[in-house]
Amino acid sequence: FLTNAQGEDVVAGVRTPMPIAEMAEKFPEAFKQFQQVCATLENHYRDMQDMEFTVEHNKLYMLQTRNGKRTAAAAIKIACDLIDEGLITEQEALMQIDAKSLDMLLHPTFETKALADADKNNVVGKGIAASPGAAAGTVVFTPEDAVKEGKAGKKVILVRLETSPEDIEGMKYSQGILTVRGGQTSHAAVVARGMGTCCVSGCGDIKMDEANKKFELGGKVFHEGDAISLDGSTGKIYDIAIKTVPADPNSGYFGRIMKLADKYKAIEVRTNADTPADAQRAFELGAQGIGLTRTEHMFFGPGRIDKFREMICSETVEERKAALANIEPMQQADFEGLMEALKGQPVIIRFLDPPLHEFVPTDEKDIQLLAKAKGKSVEYIKQLCNSLHEFNPMMGHRGCRLAVTYPEIAEMQTKAVIKAALNVQKRHPDWHVVPEIMIPLVGEVKELAYVKKTVVATADAVIAEAGVELKYMVGTMIEIPRAALTADEIAKEAEFFSFGTNDLTQMTFGFSRDDASKFLPSYYAAKIYESDPFARLDQVGVGKLMKMAVTLGRETRPELQCGICGEHGGDPSSIEFAHNIGLNYVSCSPYRVPIARLAAAQANIKNPRK
Amino acid sequence: FLTNAQGEDVVAGVRTPMPIAEMAEKFPEAFKQFQQVCATLENHYRDMQDMEFTVEHNKLYMLQTRNGKRTAAAAIKIACDLIDEGLITEQEALMQIDAKSLDMLLHPTFETKALADADKNNVVGKGIAASPGAAAGTVVFTPEDAVKEGKAGKKVILVRLETSPEDIEGMKYSQGILTVRGGQTSHAAVVARGMGTCCVSGCGDIKMDEANKKFELGGKVFHEGDAISLDGSTGKIYDIAIKTVPADPNSGYFGRIMKLADKYKAIEVRTNADTPADAQRAFELGAQGIGLTRTEHMFFGPGRIDKFREMICSETVEERKAALANIEPMQQADFEGLMEALKGQPVIIRFLDPPLHEFVPTDEKDIQLLAKAKGKSVEYIKQLCNSLHEFNPMMGHRGCRLAVTYPEIAEMQTKAVIKAALNVQKRHPDWHVVPEIMIPLVGEVKELAYVKKTVVATADAVIAEAGVELKYMVGTMIEIPRAALTADEIAKEAEFFSFGTNDLTQMTFGFSRDDASKFLPSYYAAKIYESDPFARLDQVGVGKLMKMAVTLGRETRPELQCGICGEHGGDPSSIEFAHNIGLNYVSCSPYRVPIARLAAAQANIKNPRK
Repeated sequence: FLTNAQGEDVVAGVRTPMPIAEMAEKFPEAFKQFQQVCATLENHYRDMQDMEFTVEHNKLYMLQTRNGKRTAAAAIKIACDLIDEGLITEQEALMQIDAKSLDMLLHPTFETKALADADKNNVVGKGIAASPGAAAGTVVFTPEDAVKEGKAGKKVILVRLETSPEDIEGMKYSQGILTVRGGQTSHAAVVARGMGTCCVSGCGDIKMDEANKKFELGGKVFHEGDAISLDGSTGKIYDIAIKTVPADPNSGYFGRIMKLADKYKAIEVRTNADTPADAQRAFELGAQGIGLTRTEHMFFGPGRIDKFREMICSETVEERKAALANIEPMQQADFEGLMEALKGQPVIIRFLDPPLHEFVPTDEKDIQLLAKAKGKSVEYIKQLCNSLHEFNPMMGHRGCRLAVTYPEIAEMQTKAVIKAALNVQKRHPDWHVVPEIMIPLVGEVKELAYVKKTVVATADAVIAEAGVELKYMVGTMIEIPRAALTADEIAKEAEFFSFGTNDLTQMTFGFSRDDASKFLPSYYAAKIYESDPFARLDQVGVGKLMKMAVTLGRETRPELQCGICGEHGGDPSSIEFAHNIGLNYVSCSPYRVPIARLAAAQANIKNPRK
Repeated sequence: FLTNAQGEDVVAGVRTPMPIAEMAEKFPEAFKQFQQVCATLENHYRDMQDMEFTVEHNKLYMLQTRNGKRTAAAAIKIACDLIDEGLITEQEALMQIDAKSLDMLLHPTFETKALADADKNNVVGKGIAASPGAAAGTVVFTPEDAVKEGKAGKKVILVRLETSPEDIEGMKYSQGILTVRGGQTSHAAVVARGMGTCCVSGCGDIKMDEANKKFELGGKVFHEGDAISLDGSTGKIYDIAIKTVPADPNSGYFGRIMKLADKYKAIEVRTNADTPADAQRAFELGAQGIGLTRTEHMFFGPGRIDKFREMICSETVEERKAALANIEPMQQADFEGLMEALKGQPVIIRFLDPPLHEFVPTDEKDIQLLAKAKGKSVEYIKQLCNSLHEFNPMMGHRGCRLAVTYPEIAEMQTKAVIKAALNVQKRHPDWHVVPEIMIPLVGEVKELAYVKKTVVATADAVIAEAGVELKYMVGTMIEIPRAALTADEIAKEAEFFSFGTNDLTQMTFGFSRDDASKFLPSYYAAKIYESDPFARLDQVGVGKLMKMAVTLGRETRPELQCGICGEHGGDPSSIEFAHNIGLNYVSCSPYRVPIARLAAAQANIKNPRK
C-alpha cells in the first residue's frame, strides 16, 4: 500500500508500495477492521480475494473485490489448501484453477548446483519477486530488440525503467523482465504473471541509462548483450546465465492436482510427437498415448532428405521403390523409439501428408547433388521441381492423394510401422502393442478403401513373414468437410477418426492460416470474429461438422474411436467441446498435456459423461 | 447395308455401305419381313430404333435393337412427329431428348448469301452427310495437330482416311471432320454426332497422301493450313472458309420443344453474363434473368484496369475513393446495359470477388505507368504488388473479405448498381426493376451484416437523393462450407442464396480446381471418382451441404430465393438435383440455357413439384 497516493500510483508502478504488514503499525484501527472484512469476503467467495481499499481520516473504505489473480503455482497451492481445510471439494478445487495457467509451471528452474554457486559469487542485486520462474539470457533494453533477438532464437532479458502496454510484444519474446520501478501490482508484474514469464520488479538500486543502453547494478555496468539471470521467486539478480532444468510435473502440489484431474476426467489425453524425445517428455507429462506422429518431419533428417528427393525425382515405380527402401529402416527405427517411449500405449502414425514440393531443394548446391545422384542435368531437376509448384498447395496433391498416385510410399511406411511394432512387442512381451495407421486428407470412402488395400496387403504380408500375431488398426483423419459429411460411409473402412481441426477449420471457413493474417485483424476490429478460429475451435461451424461426423460414424461403427489431433487439442474450451460431443481423446503438444488433463477433468465435472 | 460382309465392316467404315432402299430390289422377301419387324419394334419402344440384322439364305435374322442415336435436330424432329402422330405425350417427347445434345443445335450455320455464292463457285466434292452443322476452317491431317491448333484458338477441319478411337481428342478440337472412307454408321460419323460436330464421311473421290500431309479433290491439291468448309447436312465440301452465323433457337422444331420445356419446368433458368452482349444472347436463348454478373471482369477493360490498379496501390481511404470514383460511371453504364438486355427481369450483381493480386501489372511498362500515376518509385510498386502474393489465393483475401477491409469498394459498386437501376426504371416505367446485390464468400452472418450495412446505407442515400421509390435486394453466395452449415443464421441477413458450387466443391473436397488435374486421373483409373465433381455436382457431399443450407435458410426465411450460379447450373444431372432440393432457379452460361430449360422440364416431369 501507499500513503498519500491514488490507486493508479500503485498499478502504474511509478512508486514502490509498502508491504501490507506495515499498515498494522501505521493505521492499527483501520487494519483490524480490514482483517475482519478480508475474512468475511474470502469465506463468502471461497477463493482468495484481490481487494482495493482506501483509508481516509482513519476510516476504511472497501473499493472493490474480485477473485485474486495468482500464479499457477499459487493457484494449485491455494486449491490444495482449501481442500485440506475442508472448505471446498476436490471438484471445486479443480474448477478453481485456470487450466491455461498451468503452462507457467512447466517453465524451467535453475539447476540446484549452478544456482548454489551463483548465489555465492554472482548476486548483483535484488528486486521484488513479481512473477516466478527462472530466466537466463542476455540484456536488451527495448521491446523491439527483444522481438528481434527473440525471433532469432536468442534468450533475452528485457530491462526497463518500467513497462507499458506497448511493450507487450517484446515481453512475449523475453525469458524474463527486470524493472527499476513498480511492485507486485505494476504493469510488468501483472502481465508477466499472465504470460508465465519470470519478472523481478522494483529494483531501485539500478542506475538506468536507457539512452546509452546500459545500467549499473552492484558496482557493475551491464551493456546490451551481457549475460544476466533473474530468479522470479526470490527477486535475486545474477551477472551470469545460470543453467536451467525443465520443471517436474509429478511431485508436490502440481503432481497432486494432476492426479486429481486424472481421477475426474473422462477422455484420454494423448500427445502429438514426432521424435522419441518429445514422446518421452509427453509421457512424463502424463500423455496416455500418441495421437499424431507427423512422419514427414522424419524425412528432413540428414541422410534422409537426399533419398526422399531422389524418390520424388524418380521416373519409374522401381526407382521410387529403391529410394524409399533406403528410408525404410530409418523410419522403422524412429517408430520403435516412439513406441518404446510410450511403453505400449497407443501410437497413431499418420502417413505422409504435405505436398512433395515442400521437400525439393532450393539451394543450388543441393540441386547439383540431386542431379548427380539421379544422373540427370541440373536443368532437368530444376524443371521437375518447378513442375511440382501448385496454385493452392493447401488444396493440392497431398495427404492420401500421394498414396493414391504413389502407393509405394504407403507400402514403405506400412512396412516400417509393422516391423517396428513387431520388434517392440518382441522386446516387451508384457506390452500390448497395437499400432494405428492413420490415412490423412480422406474425402471419400473409396479413396480410403483404395489406400487401405495397399496397407493391409503389405502389413499382412510382413506379419505372416514374421510368423507371429499382431493386431493393427487403420483409421483416418477427418479434416476435409466431405469426410465429415459422409462419415457414415467412411466409417465402413476407418477403425478410428481423428479430427484434424487445423485443416478442417481452413476448409470450413475457406481461408488459409498462412494468408488469413492479412484480413483477420479487420475482422476482429469489426467484431465479426472474437477469437482466432485456429486457436479456439469454432463450435458453431466446424463443431457442427465434427458432431455430425461422430454421430454418423458411430451409426456405422458403434465402437468407433474419435479424437482431435489438431492444435485445438490443447485449448481448454475446445477440449470441453470434445468432451461434450463424446470424443474418446484429445491429442496435443507435450507441454500442453497437463493443461489438457485439467481441462478434461473440468469438462467432466461440468457435464459428467454417462 | 453391305453384301458379303460382317457387321464390323459397316461400323469400322472400311467399306461404304449401300442405302437401305436398294435392299428392296436385291432381297425383296427379306426386305418385306424387315419392314414388318421395324413397325412392331418401333411401336413397342415408342422411339426410333437402331437395328442390326443379317440375311442368310434369304432368311432375315434380327441381331440387336436399341433406341437410335441421332443428332439433336433429328431427336427434336422425331419427338415432334411422335407427338403429332399421337404416339406419345408431350411429357414423353421431352423425356426422349438428351438435354446435353441440344448443344449441337446452337452451333452456327452458314450465312445464306455466302453459302449461295460458294455453291456456285467453290464446291470441290461431296461425301455422305454424316453429322449436321456448318464447319469452316483450315485443314489438319492428324489429331495431334488438331489439338495443338485448336488449343491455340484456330478453327480446323480434321481430314482422315478414317477415324479411330485414338483420334477422339483431336476430333474434339475440330470444327468439322472429313473422311475418305466410312458411311453414316462409321466411327467418325457416330462420334461426331455424339459431339455435335459437323462430319462429312465416305468421300471416296479424295486422293489422300497422309504421309505428305496433302490430298487432292476436285482437281485441287489441299495442304495443311488451306481453307476448307464442310456442310454436314448436304455433304458438300468447299475450297474456302464460308462465313457462319449463330443458330436460331426460337423457330421450327427447336422453338416448339423449348416452348414445351418452359410449359413443364418448375424452376427458372437464368444466365451468367458479364457483358450486355452475353446478356442479350442469353435472353434470346430463353434466360429468365441474370443469376451471376462477375463485376471484376469489367475491371479489366481499357481505361479501367489503370484506375483499379491505382486503387490497389493507394495508401489512404481517400486515395482509394478517388480512384474508385473514376470507375463508378463505367461500371454503372455496364449495369445499365445488362438490365436493358434482360428487359426488367431479375439481375443479380456479385460484388468484387478475386484477390487483388490478380489485377496488378506484371509487365514492366505497366508497372512504370502505375508508378508514374501514383508518384511512387518502380521499386515501391513492385514491392507492393509482391506483398499481395498469397500462399493459397483460393483461400485468401478475396470475396467479401475485400469489402470488410476496404468498404469503399462495396460503396462504389452499390452506387453504380443503384444509379443504373434508377436510370433503367426511369426509361422503362412499365418494367419492375429490382436489382439484386450479391455478397460473395460469406462464412459468418456478422460478416454479411457488416458489409450489408455499408451497402444499405449507400443505396438508401442514393435512392433518397433521387427522390423516387426503388426496391433492391441484398443476398449472398453460399460457397463456403461454414455458410451452408450456419445458413439459418445467414438467412437472417440474406434475402437470397446463390450456391457457388465451384468454390463449394473445392472447399468441400479440399482440392483446388487448378491443381486437381495432377491427381484426378489416378482417381479415375482407380475408380475412386467416376466423374469430375466440377462438371457434375457431387450430390452425396456437396449436395448434402446444399440441402442443409436450403432447409436451414428457409426455416429462418420461408420465402428465401435459392439458386445455383456455379458451372453446374448448366449440367442436366445437377439441374435435376437442384429441382429436387427445391431451388428456385439455376443460372448457367448463355449457350447452356436451352439445355437447362429442357433438363428442368425433365426433372419436373420425373418428380413433379407440388
